[in-house]
Amino acid sequence: MRLASTHDARLHAVLHDRTVDLTDALGLRPGAGGPLLDFLERGGTLADLQRLDLGALPSRPLDPARLAAPIARPGKVVGAPVNYRDHQAEMGEQRTIADYGVFLKATSSVVGPTGAIRLPYTDVRTDHEGELAVVIGRTASRVPVEQALDHVFGYAPVLDITVRAGEDRSTRKSFDTFTPFGPWVTTADEVPDPGALDLRCWVDDELRQHASTADLIYGVAELVAYTSHVMTLHPGDVIASGTPAGVGPIAAGQRVAVEITGLGRLDVGVTDDGAIPYADRPGHR
Amino acid sequence: MRLASTHDARLHAVLHDRTVDLTDALGLRPGAGGPLLDFLERGGTLADLQRLDLGALPSRPLDPARLAAPIARPGKVVGAPVNYRDHQAEMGEQRTIADYGVFLKATSSVVGPTGAIRLPYTDVRTDHEGELAVVIGRTASRVPVEQALDHVFGYAPVLDITVRAGEDRSTRKSFDTFTPFGPWVTTADEVPDPGALDLRCWVDDELRQHASTADLIYGVAELVAYTSHVMTLHPGDVIASGTPAGVGPIAAGQRVAVEITGLGRLDVGVTDDGAIPYADRPGHR
Repeated sequence: MRLASTHDARLHAVLHDRTVDLTDALGLRPGAGGPLLDFLERGGTLADLQRLDLGALPSRPLDPARLAAPIARPGKVVGAPVNYRDHQAEMGEQRTIADYGVFLKATSSVVGPTGAIRLPYTDVRTDHEGELAVVIGRTASRVPVEQALDHVFGYAPVLDITVRAGEDRSTRKSFDTFTPFGPWVTTADEVPDPGALDLRCWVDDELRQHASTADLIYGVAELVAYTSHVMTLHPGDVIASGTPAGVGPIAAGQRVAVEITGLGRLDVGVTDDGAIPYADRPGHR
Repeated sequence: MRLASTHDARLHAVLHDRTVDLTDALGLRPGAGGPLLDFLERGGTLADLQRLDLGALPSRPLDPARLAAPIARPGKVVGAPVNYRDHQAEMGEQRTIADYGVFLKATSSVVGPTGAIRLPYTDVRTDHEGELAVVIGRTASRVPVEQALDHVFGYAPVLDITVRAGEDRSTRKSFDTFTPFGPWVTTADEVPDPGALDLRCWVDDELRQHASTADLIYGVAELVAYTSHVMTLHPGDVIASGTPAGVGPIAAGQRVAVEITGLGRLDVGVTDDGAIPYADRPGHR
């Protein structure tokens, strides 16, 4: 099932060109995290969704302008540094995720498919990184690799926008709007092998990244297992699984799109509204 | 006012050796974040607390065994790397927070004053870092330094426990139990100058850290302003303001305590239950 959240904090199943509103049938009372987070935090499962009689629920034509991030404010947004060999090579990196572990992005950086990436600085390179996002469905603490996928609720495209400067990853990747996420979450039952997905990322009409998740250094199961070794993962937590080669700068007025087989296409704009010179940032010495 | 949360998800004012239960008077309905987060997320302010007639509310003797983290799961836990000159020197660091910006800790790493630090590895050094925590009261986005303290709700002692290894800070500082926090939050009106607080940290009876927040490189106002330049801060978000010189290893069976003038004393144990050799971690290559 494909699950989309709308700006009015309602949860929908996406069926071809229509959306079916699940909010009332599931008794959701969304907080700041949105309706899908409410569903997952209260223990909602795929079985709960499959029990619904979708034909009996209100539906309307799919309207992309109404779509919000599937989870507006996850409990955690985890990132995977240097998790593709070709990206390791292009960055001149000696090390990989096996050395770096994971990093965290601010949950306030999430925007949905109608959002726009806001560049913070007029004079510092800011890059797109197209990635596969993993959404946790069941609490995961120190789970073995063999059981890790049992804790995954679903998958979605995500962008890990990144300032190229000297700060800690958490700073460079946490500016507001730096985690475009969507257009919806596809439940794991429709993704038989998360290690065989084709990922493509465009800036305007130029294909910048094209890879298979088969080339992940830590595949999804190992990434979930490793992360759960460090920190307890809760329902609705999101893991961005890392980016392949081809990252590059984005500029105001461009559009950035990431598409993954079967998971849809996320397509957002870029603006420099409010951007300042790097030397004008607070605390600059 | 001093605000404490208890394991039964109730919010209390701490008055000398008694606690006054504010939960029902404030109409709180806590979620996973606990009652103080519920209060702050719904726009609660110091004025709302000051309007309460504490003498008319149920009270009981203060029982330290009942105290949970003031906020069990904040929306964000932000950390400040290299924010004291003497700690910069002891780490042989060329750079400071002005270069690194801030980092993020997993919100799942928070424990309260009755918690214990769990060492993840049997053979990797894990350090205490005693710090002043700043609790955000009002949403802060790109606030100037001069207005930053208006967005602070209160202060508390916090420990930023850290594995010394090669991973990203977010990994090394995010293991479950790595953010002991409490014993309560003291509202900002009782802290006339957050830049003149005496901070001490002990391991068992040994005083390991002793500093004044006057020696912060980014003082509290500048730290809030800088962080809000990167990411929108929401009510209940927590910023650990950085640690002074004297960090050092902790071992199972020890106790770690941090005390800050007027903010109380946080005192937690250390255990190696479940610790594994570093080479046995998932994903080790």
